[in-house]
Amino acid sequence: MPELRKDPVVGRWVIISTERARRPSDFGSDPVRAKGGRCVFCPGNEGQTPPEIFALRPPGTPANTGGWSLRVVSNKFPALRIEGELEPQGEGLYDRMNGIGAHEVIIETPEHTATLASLPEAAVMDVLWTYRERMVDLKKDPRFDYVLIFKNHGEAAGASLEHPHSQLIATPIVPIMVEEELEGAARYFRRKERCVWCDIVRQERQAGGRVILDAGGFIAVAPFAPRFPFESWILPTTHRSAYEEVGLEEVRALAWIVVELLRRMNRVLKDPPFNFMLHTAPLREPSLDHYHWHLEVIPKLTKVAGFEWGSGFFINPTPPEDAARYLREEPA
Amino acid sequence: MPELRKDPVVGRWVIISTERARRPSDFGSDPVRAKGGRCVFCPGNEGQTPPEIFALRPPGTPANTGGWSLRVVSNKFPALRIEGELEPQGEGLYDRMNGIGAHEVIIETPEHTATLASLPEAAVMDVLWTYRERMVDLKKDPRFDYVLIFKNHGEAAGASLEHPHSQLIATPIVPIMVEEELEGAARYFRRKERCVWCDIVRQERQAGGRVILDAGGFIAVAPFAPRFPFESWILPTTHRSAYEEVGLEEVRALAWIVVELLRRMNRVLKDPPFNFMLHTAPLREPSLDHYHWHLEVIPKLTKVAGFEWGSGFFINPTPPEDAARYLREEPA
Repeated sequence: MPELRKDPVVGRWVIISTERARRPSDFGSDPVRAKGGRCVFCPGNEGQTPPEIFALRPPGTPANTGGWSLRVVSNKFPALRIEGELEPQGEGLYDRMNGIGAHEVIIETPEHTATLASLPEAAVMDVLWTYRERMVDLKKDPRFDYVLIFKNHGEAAGASLEHPHSQLIATPIVPIMVEEELEGAARYFRRKERCVWCDIVRQERQAGGRVILDAGGFIAVAPFAPRFPFESWILPTTHRSAYEEVGLEEVRALAWIVVELLRRMNRVLKDPPFNFMLHTAPLREPSLDHYHWHLEVIPKLTKVAGFEWGSGFFINPTPPEDAARYLREEPA
Repeated sequence: MPELRKDPVVGRWVIISTERARRPSDFGSDPVRAKGGRCVFCPGNEGQTPPEIFALRPPGTPANTGGWSLRVVSNKFPALRIEGELEPQGEGLYDRMNGIGAHEVIIETPEHTATLASLPEAAVMDVLWTYRERMVDLKKDPRFDYVLIFKNHGEAAGASLEHPHSQLIATPIVPIMVEEELEGAARYFRRKERCVWCDIVRQERQAGGRVILDAGGFIAVAPFAPRFPFESWILPTTHRSAYEEVGLEEVRALAWIVVELLRRMNRVLKDPPFNFMLHTAPLREPSLDHYHWHLEVIPKLTKVAGFEWGSGFFINPTPPEDAARYLREEPA
């Protein structure tokens, strides 16, 4: 059983993942990497993944067979386990609980060599809509307080399988990074009675220099203080706190901007590895006036080293105004 | 001029580093890597570094010539600039200031192929004593609130030069990670009237399972909630908040435990890349009852990916009890 453990000083939780337990000699080799031609996410190999939780497939076709256009399955090496109760315990001054949660893989397409940037927009809409579907479903489980949706693309960005997929992890604790956003945004709201991200959208539109794309109710910007070169955020331009309340028309516009941003990144940065992370309000919070969901996209171009790990400062060699200009001016 | 910029939501500062400015085509190649035989840190090439700030060299030998056993020079590509004033400015809802600070390199030895683990303990003592010397000196500059000392060893850990060196960055702001430790530790102290790290030392000694080494007034432990596999912390076993108040006898014992820990890591993990970071009290704080300096050592064995960047949770595949056992039982 994996364990959740809390640092007694800063309150950061870590997952001690027994399913992925590693001895010293295991590092360096990646035990889950698929060899060419034997990809477990490819059509025909449905039996090699855990059973389907959700799929888009022709009506009448049985689960875990071919014909699908998208599948969601449990991660075969889950960071957290779905069965059990949290059973929080103390150990002297330390806190721990069972590592309960959901860890799912969204297999975005049957095509092994596709990417979100190369897929038709309708297929990307399906992926984005599936995120919503899974959040709505996992919200029913009272043990979970948060669903984090994320994508690792490319080996350097932590992907252990090549086949296009994103992941979600449902946690019994609101992640500390979301907590910090919630606290900062609540502070801002108390002072100004406005959502800080709504103000960011207004200011970026006015200034213009950090705007990459602005269409259909979504904006892609290079944030004012980005941790990473070419870091980009996508936000709805009107206030929305919970991703799962997104409508079908919004998902269409979102798919367009996600695909367009990734295509431009691919052209400007030559198909970089990247991560994206969806930040949305906690599952148990009602609509929040001070929180605004957003998608953070970070190409993996630089190494994070001792200064960053020790300080929490990030050294970014590319001003966001330059990054935005490269991405904005790239012909479509 | 580099710039310090603050994220308006979470308050994290980033350094937009114009000295290291990069266009899209610059990523992937590392512009500062030395080719074999032309290492700028090697003896004979003293003229290729910025001038010496500090050195251990035979009495009477001129600065920036051979014969030294340790040199400190400015980083040729500094993240922050030493000249100027902060001049904080607003830009709508954003905050920025000039990127003022010191960025120095401690060249630990003239031997290109040595490492901290292979050097004689006396040489490591010199390195650790130099950290103290530089902190005492930089403390005199009223613009600086913190000195972060860190080391990147190996390319995967962010080292751009092979020659053994550590670095320091003096900043006009206390780093957010140290702030979070200070806040958490102050909260603990208010409740218990005890330093949380003193309590950690006591509890770890009693339990034993996470202790790696314990000698001469220092302890090396695998922390209860480590972010990374084989993460290890070295702490003084009696309360000390400011590293720069360390005495010569303490530095001798510290050198022993640092070297012994690194040697064991090298044997167990086959010379892993690693970072270490020295966390000490801010320069302007008097002796603090609730802060306790410590050295965090993190071997670079796993990739940080979307889940970690999006949540602040870390997934660690090696329980610290296992890591400590491997490192403790490794014969000396």
